[in-house]
Amino acid sequence: MTAAARTRTTGKALDLGPAAELVSKEEKHRQPLAPEFVSLEDFSPLEVAYDFGTVRRADIEAGPRSIWRYKQLLPVPSDVEQHASTDPGCTRLIRADNLAKALGVKRIWVKDDTGNPTHSFKDRVVAVALAAAREFGFKVLACPSTGNLANAVAAAAARAGWDSVVLVPKTLEKAKILMSAVYDTSLLAVDGNYDDVNRLATELAGEHEDWAFVNVNVRPYYSEGSKTLAFEVAEQLGWRLPEQIVVPIASGSQLTKVHKGFNELGEVGLVEPSPTKIFGAQATGCSPVATAYKEGQDVVQPVRPDTIARSLAIGAPADGPYVLDTVRQTGGSIEDVTDDEVREGIKLLARTEGIFAETAGGVTVATAKKLIEAGKIDPDAETVLLITGDGLKTLDAVQDGIGPKATVSPSVEAVDEALRQA
Amino acid sequence: MTAAARTRTTGKALDLGPAAELVSKEEKHRQPLAPEFVSLEDFSPLEVAYDFGTVRRADIEAGPRSIWRYKQLLPVPSDVEQHASTDPGCTRLIRADNLAKALGVKRIWVKDDTGNPTHSFKDRVVAVALAAAREFGFKVLACPSTGNLANAVAAAAARAGWDSVVLVPKTLEKAKILMSAVYDTSLLAVDGNYDDVNRLATELAGEHEDWAFVNVNVRPYYSEGSKTLAFEVAEQLGWRLPEQIVVPIASGSQLTKVHKGFNELGEVGLVEPSPTKIFGAQATGCSPVATAYKEGQDVVQPVRPDTIARSLAIGAPADGPYVLDTVRQTGGSIEDVTDDEVREGIKLLARTEGIFAETAGGVTVATAKKLIEAGKIDPDAETVLLITGDGLKTLDAVQDGIGPKATVSPSVEAVDEALRQA
Repeated sequence: MTAAARTRTTGKALDLGPAAELVSKEEKHRQPLAPEFVSLEDFSPLEVAYDFGTVRRADIEAGPRSIWRYKQLLPVPSDVEQHASTDPGCTRLIRADNLAKALGVKRIWVKDDTGNPTHSFKDRVVAVALAAAREFGFKVLACPSTGNLANAVAAAAARAGWDSVVLVPKTLEKAKILMSAVYDTSLLAVDGNYDDVNRLATELAGEHEDWAFVNVNVRPYYSEGSKTLAFEVAEQLGWRLPEQIVVPIASGSQLTKVHKGFNELGEVGLVEPSPTKIFGAQATGCSPVATAYKEGQDVVQPVRPDTIARSLAIGAPADGPYVLDTVRQTGGSIEDVTDDEVREGIKLLARTEGIFAETAGGVTVATAKKLIEAGKIDPDAETVLLITGDGLKTLDAVQDGIGPKATVSPSVEAVDEALRQA
Repeated sequence: MTAAARTRTTGKALDLGPAAELVSKEEKHRQPLAPEFVSLEDFSPLEVAYDFGTVRRADIEAGPRSIWRYKQLLPVPSDVEQHASTDPGCTRLIRADNLAKALGVKRIWVKDDTGNPTHSFKDRVVAVALAAAREFGFKVLACPSTGNLANAVAAAAARAGWDSVVLVPKTLEKAKILMSAVYDTSLLAVDGNYDDVNRLATELAGEHEDWAFVNVNVRPYYSEGSKTLAFEVAEQLGWRLPEQIVVPIASGSQLTKVHKGFNELGEVGLVEPSPTKIFGAQATGCSPVATAYKEGQDVVQPVRPDTIARSLAIGAPADGPYVLDTVRQTGGSIEDVTDDEVREGIKLLARTEGIFAETAGGVTVATAKKLIEAGKIDPDAETVLLITGDGLKTLDAVQDGIGPKATVSPSVEAVDEALRQA
């Protein structure tokens, strides 16, 4: 018996708010809401379809300071904000005039998702996954991960009072293990590489009917959480859509969901529909989508990742083809940048705006720079950059070439001399 | 010529909002607002005095989502929110029912200041210091620090487009240097210990009329930033004061300013005045204020710090006597906890509420536990815990005893077996 079936046999109607059905991305087959992620009709990913009804700005503005203010646009129970959650979201959107000047453009906004509870956008998707998983009757939150997702799952489960299982490759560095293990999750080091860990997760999801693997069996709900980035950007701009946005690409899900979020805001009348060009950012060491884009392909050839931007290092991105569609349809572009450019991107954002991003943020900033220089991003139109994670988690990536300006003896003269030479 | 004199000779009146004068803490001598921190009359610290006028809840609630919503209660220019700033504050106050249950009390609230731009409460005090420093005509933001303060100064200066000078002992670990140096501050490694660095800062503040050392020459303004913790707690509770609050003690400034903040809210009529018992938390390895409290002393004997809670490791806390006054006057208490208890406090908060605090947060949680067990904190009254910094910055402190539950082969059976034994 599936978890969905169990929920239904309790007699309680399934409440996932405005979520109405699942629909397959390829051939648009429809099926009831359930913890399933692939269509058995056309084998394409399943996505949530909605009956939105009336959604008003005033109701959202009067809601909680978290993603739950947008619950009328998410696949979550109507009383979602009543349950203990990490309550992510409502992170800063800052006008980045120093960065804009450095890049020679008119206006840049930085969406700073380092302000989330575990300091990455993964808190958003995990919170939505947990809310849906609770409604489906799951009891354990789980994931395979090497970083941000593990942190977010372990923290969200702790806060909700759930058990969690986090699977990591046993070669993961001690610091990264600590960042998740501190929440007392059942963190298991798996004797294998990340592909082995992922395969194991899919097997376990099939065997344990109480386990919700956030990015496997409840993925259609999980991935909808990324729409909240789009909702917040629009609300923070005064209920309008930006002209251009740069989004980092890992699986590609975030980019497609940001686009979906902008469209839904227009559909329900929360914003005046207007075109947003969507740009994708990859690290050259794992740039299968950028390569397909540049070669004019519709399919994405898998690669073996080799980049410091590990949170983006997915060699076979599930949503790659949909990213290509979205970017082409909106008039955007996809570019990739070297690890040195990533480091420079991190430093540029830090020194201009005081925001220390993880490597994925460096990819976004460096890609924006490259797209501006190539004339693909319009310097006279405004651009939003999504900074999705925190530099404190990828310190090792920037340690070369950053350090004290000088070592001095403890005297005024020594300090003055050092600063003259710096 | 002092910076204050320079501002005044420009003909522009000094605008520090409601701030009216400086007053000495001991004998209440009054003097004009200036970048000075010690009274030449009685050699006690100077503190800001105000003419508040009318302050309305509605104006605050309609203000920005940052500490600037409280500008009518801070020594900052009237147009403070118009200048580029890290815009700290408005961090989460969460109801911590899991933690309350674990501690056997009725209700606990956690003020989670890890959500600030550089993930500690120092962003608050630095933002206020920078705003006042700009008004006084300073051009460079500076500090001696080994951690959170350095991060906050470097980031705030970057965002404001200011130069900054950060002085650290040359023995500081590479990871901690990176966290500040990434903002391209003039970070200087000083050949000496932290006392040498501090002395050098005071000398430099005397020599460089353009340099604002946040915690030296503009300290009276800087320290007022801690009041915003009190303001936010009260507003987030629905405009009322909590019954009990636990505050970590380093210099002791934060504890006294939280008290001052609560009092000012009552004075201007934003809340109904009500008593809040204020409790102080120290690490046993640096507990001069707890020792003085327990011995019934009015003065604090300096100690040589030896604790993992480095952000609290001030052996000669400047505001120690005022902390003793405040705690005794409000009916609170001061307690200290061992490094092992600090680690347990960090883990307890993480596993119950999904918040990963730095060692100072572990001190606060562990002290609360000890005070509850001793019957000093009333289990039937609500308690607020201030969590002032992020665990990602003090990973080394918790690395012992935290790790994977098991190492397993990549099979469902191996996972199940490991979880049965965990």
